[in-house]
Amino acid sequence: MQKTRLSSLSDWLKEQDIDVSFISSTENVFYLTNFYTDPHERLLGLFVFKQEEPFLICPGMEVSQAKAAGFQYEIIGYADHEDPWEKVKIAFEKRGLKANKAAVEKELLSYSRAEQLLQLVEGATIHSVEEKMNQLRLIKDEKELKIMEQAAQLADYGVQVGIEALQSGITEMDVLAKIEYELKRKGIREMSFSTMVLFGEKSGQPHGNPGLVSLKTGDFVLFDLGVVLDGYCSDITRTFAYKEISSKQTDIYETVLKSQLKALEASKPGTRIGELDQIARDIITESGYGEYFPHRLGHGLGISVHEYPSMSHTNNDLLQEGMVYTIEPGIYVPDIGGVRIEDDVYITKDSHVTLTKFPKELQIIK
Amino acid sequence: MQKTRLSSLSDWLKEQDIDVSFISSTENVFYLTNFYTDPHERLLGLFVFKQEEPFLICPGMEVSQAKAAGFQYEIIGYADHEDPWEKVKIAFEKRGLKANKAAVEKELLSYSRAEQLLQLVEGATIHSVEEKMNQLRLIKDEKELKIMEQAAQLADYGVQVGIEALQSGITEMDVLAKIEYELKRKGIREMSFSTMVLFGEKSGQPHGNPGLVSLKTGDFVLFDLGVVLDGYCSDITRTFAYKEISSKQTDIYETVLKSQLKALEASKPGTRIGELDQIARDIITESGYGEYFPHRLGHGLGISVHEYPSMSHTNNDLLQEGMVYTIEPGIYVPDIGGVRIEDDVYITKDSHVTLTKFPKELQIIK
Repeated sequence: MQKTRLSSLSDWLKEQDIDVSFISSTENVFYLTNFYTDPHERLLGLFVFKQEEPFLICPGMEVSQAKAAGFQYEIIGYADHEDPWEKVKIAFEKRGLKANKAAVEKELLSYSRAEQLLQLVEGATIHSVEEKMNQLRLIKDEKELKIMEQAAQLADYGVQVGIEALQSGITEMDVLAKIEYELKRKGIREMSFSTMVLFGEKSGQPHGNPGLVSLKTGDFVLFDLGVVLDGYCSDITRTFAYKEISSKQTDIYETVLKSQLKALEASKPGTRIGELDQIARDIITESGYGEYFPHRLGHGLGISVHEYPSMSHTNNDLLQEGMVYTIEPGIYVPDIGGVRIEDDVYITKDSHVTLTKFPKELQIIK
Repeated sequence: MQKTRLSSLSDWLKEQDIDVSFISSTENVFYLTNFYTDPHERLLGLFVFKQEEPFLICPGMEVSQAKAAGFQYEIIGYADHEDPWEKVKIAFEKRGLKANKAAVEKELLSYSRAEQLLQLVEGATIHSVEEKMNQLRLIKDEKELKIMEQAAQLADYGVQVGIEALQSGITEMDVLAKIEYELKRKGIREMSFSTMVLFGEKSGQPHGNPGLVSLKTGDFVLFDLGVVLDGYCSDITRTFAYKEISSKQTDIYETVLKSQLKALEASKPGTRIGELDQIARDIITESGYGEYFPHRLGHGLGISVHEYPSMSHTNNDLLQEGMVYTIEPGIYVPDIGGVRIEDDVYITKDSHVTLTKFPKELQIIK
């Protein structure tokens, strides 16, 4: 796997006649080396070449972990008081490397690291390796799918734990804590983003923050959560009514559900990606809630919780087998609250499967 | 507060004759506007000028939150399908702005955003605003100190919860889950980094990952954790012995403790920062463990869990009143395990206080 991925990148460098690619994000280094680490402000860098073997530079105390992850080429460690770029320079000199063209992660690489790299490959033009990395990561292989299925199951479980915790007067944070506690007991170290548990009117904030609000009859309860499992993310949203529901709330819920199901239905190879957002948006607009659906339909999912493809109506690419993304339409009405329903979707040879499987019919929690 | 910070930045721009500064990191935007948000791949940007009033651009659905946080100048929102840079361009044109010099967060700004900015301020030279921002953030004011004291208390509490959870056979993840559960119930939404609970030999990995390892008699138990409270981080490490301790383990513990206390003792205005690392390192080296202390003494702490000042022996700056940083020497011996003891330290007018207050004398948990 690792070799194939590195070879694909190397082949691309040959095609583009780019001498060197510098990969420094946790996600892309993981994708190419199977070594997952976030060294914060310390330098982590994978150098992949047109012709030479790649090498990895990382904090000295992580060298053994990089090796254990299976990276088979040179690993250069450095101590905190050393300048890692000096070591990179020596590695370049040892290989007699000169670069006319260098490719970097333009979206992720910091301006200052780019400056340091430019000192190393003076006069080289800078190209983007991101599109290539995004394309490589866009299509998930079987091993990745297996992990993502498990990650999605754990997200389903998180929703179940959340529902079971509901009782009048409990706070959003208390429910959130219970969900994460049970997931951590299953070995989950990291949620894929800040877990959201929102009650009542607060569910009407698409990016609201859980707090010490208490649950009361008639509230919407919105869960949005996911886990990181073996480097891959899941992401689910479910909304419930607590004890009672008004006809207006029911209408909002059923509209979101219909819109979500219709977008799911269109999920198969060959569909224009932007079409899905349009289908979901049209249903919501026709029901009179158009102004209350302020975000895109969803996002790609994988090593990052937001990756390619963007499920925006302007995306003209076509769905392909192996893509994984979310479908998450929502309606957020001030003073009433919001409903969002989100699944993780995997495109199969001629259709799709949802990785998240928690039921979606309107549930009134008693 | 907000006005003063923005004015300080504006004054600096005048001094440096820099026309515009583009601030896009969650942390620095928060510091300058009191608006805390992580819009992931979406653009968040604060433009501060030499002469004009600043403006903020953020995702449309967050405009009301930015306003509520107290930002008093223009806030420009954009929808997912809009190009935020077009809106920035219009805002610049409206103000008739031309820039010969622009300052950015070189360490944080991505190369591609820098490219977009450069299109906007064509021909401008790019300077770093980071040093200025780091200097502004380096000295904590009273309000910040109050928050950090509370954040540190919660970290102390996390260690207490961890100790109470210890029993033979329990896993690292189970203890971790209990710690985070109790902290979340107190309203904590985010830990300041991935909580570490390491047993036995695993405590000997300075960057080890908690897993399903079970606790047994004679293990070291290492906790390293912190919370984010109102945008500020805490960070504590404590190490305990479980039921029994060998003389070798005792020697390691006492060496680390002595080294930590000596570095603390030297913490006062006017001390060269690098001196602290040297003091701690000398004690560990003299005891024969020099090779087992592979990292710097600590790091600055504030809105970021790692910020200025770097507590490395090469740092020649002097300690000043209002600085907050960690002191966390460690010794990690393969096959035995590791000990690290970490406090958050605040420099007072003529000495220091530790914000974390959990006891440090060797404790054998029965």
